[in-house]
Amino acid sequence: MQIVIIGSGNVAYHMAKAFTLKSIPLAQIFGRNEKELSKISEELHIPYSTGHLEEADLYIICVSDHSVEEVSKIITKKNCLVAHTSGSLPKEALSGEYRKASFYPLQTFSKSKELEYEKIPFFVEAENEKDQKILLELASQISEKVMESSHEKRKYIHLTAVFACNFVNHLFSRAKEISDSQEIPFDYFLPLIDETVQKIYEIEPKQAQTGPAVRNDVRILQLHEQLLKDESLEIYKTMNHSIQKMYEL
Amino acid sequence: MQIVIIGSGNVAYHMAKAFTLKSIPLAQIFGRNEKELSKISEELHIPYSTGHLEEADLYIICVSDHSVEEVSKIITKKNCLVAHTSGSLPKEALSGEYRKASFYPLQTFSKSKELEYEKIPFFVEAENEKDQKILLELASQISEKVMESSHEKRKYIHLTAVFACNFVNHLFSRAKEISDSQEIPFDYFLPLIDETVQKIYEIEPKQAQTGPAVRNDVRILQLHEQLLKDESLEIYKTMNHSIQKMYEL
Repeated sequence: MQIVIIGSGNVAYHMAKAFTLKSIPLAQIFGRNEKELSKISEELHIPYSTGHLEEADLYIICVSDHSVEEVSKIITKKNCLVAHTSGSLPKEALSGEYRKASFYPLQTFSKSKELEYEKIPFFVEAENEKDQKILLELASQISEKVMESSHEKRKYIHLTAVFACNFVNHLFSRAKEISDSQEIPFDYFLPLIDETVQKIYEIEPKQAQTGPAVRNDVRILQLHEQLLKDESLEIYKTMNHSIQKMYEL
Repeated sequence: MQIVIIGSGNVAYHMAKAFTLKSIPLAQIFGRNEKELSKISEELHIPYSTGHLEEADLYIICVSDHSVEEVSKIITKKNCLVAHTSGSLPKEALSGEYRKASFYPLQTFSKSKELEYEKIPFFVEAENEKDQKILLELASQISEKVMESSHEKRKYIHLTAVFACNFVNHLFSRAKEISDSQEIPFDYFLPLIDETVQKIYEIEPKQAQTGPAVRNDVRILQLHEQLLKDESLEIYKTMNHSIQKMYEL
């Protein structure tokens, strides 16, 4: 099977690297940014082009959500499979007469950061069972965690990630504001944060909950509210309310 | 210096272990729970008692917040230093005629979990400089991160930890509700969560923010709100509002 990766950003780089490490040959990496493409090409020994798109059986489009439709139009071949790597777009966002699919790696990518590809979950959706099988088998060569997933399901995957990652990071930002205000180095909290995450490898987060809200420690809750204002106070109240609802306090 | 640890729970165990590993001798571990005390005593080779409190220069009270005052009354000696390990109580919560102090390790403890004590921050407060110096030096033998901290400052440390740990864990609980509802294994999100935490070792959380709110992706924000209800919807709105305020969107 001839495979081409389209894109030159973080996702394209890591997809190309994941394939290469598993000795799955790539016919080409195609994109607009010659500088990035040549770097990837040199590191991974894959041919690249900014002008001539190679004939292939499978094209994997690794570009940002808002570019997927436009980029998908450059594939004029009909008898082929085209997949995008977006978590939030339906496979119908691809615009062409080929067979459409979604090939979604659930991870945050940056070029400088090494990743264990075996641990990255892949979610796969295609128009028919044969294509589904092709993509599931391909993903299984890279990762231990591969799952079929409709567009509907991907919406919830994305939403879960927003809570478990984007919002978690924002809590770190607000926490750092508080520690900065008292000249306490934020890195003093990193061991505690690591433990918080380590715990959920072993027990359910609902069982792992600690802190004043779940203890219903009204004295501390009131004290903390006096120390906060604006958005941080809103977060404090909303989170505590949600904790107390979850534990029926 | 004769040191006695009072308590038989998670904090008492880990404090005793941290001292022992650094060859700092403990004169006794004292408490009510004979079964737990004898286990700790056997593992760490420290004498224990449930009845006779040993004479010491320093008593470290490792019991839960609501028991600190009561437990502190059993120390009738006057010429000694007594410290509690609570993050939220003032040193004046100790009730006796001895010199009072706070010796606060910023970590979440469970007996079954091994910890790198060198990385646990210690916050220390005493009534005078001499006691302060004794406790700072003692903490420095265990940990690389030792800091003086008034009760006022400890309030903010605790508050920071509530945001960075208690609330983070609750976000994991709410995230798991969402993934459970779609029969997506929550452990599929663990690599992404790990990356989210790894990132803040390298860049400021404010710089690491990703997701629909910071991109001001109104289409996704509206879509997500339709998928949520009750407390999770409240959290979604509050967090996004806070993100958009922080980045002035």
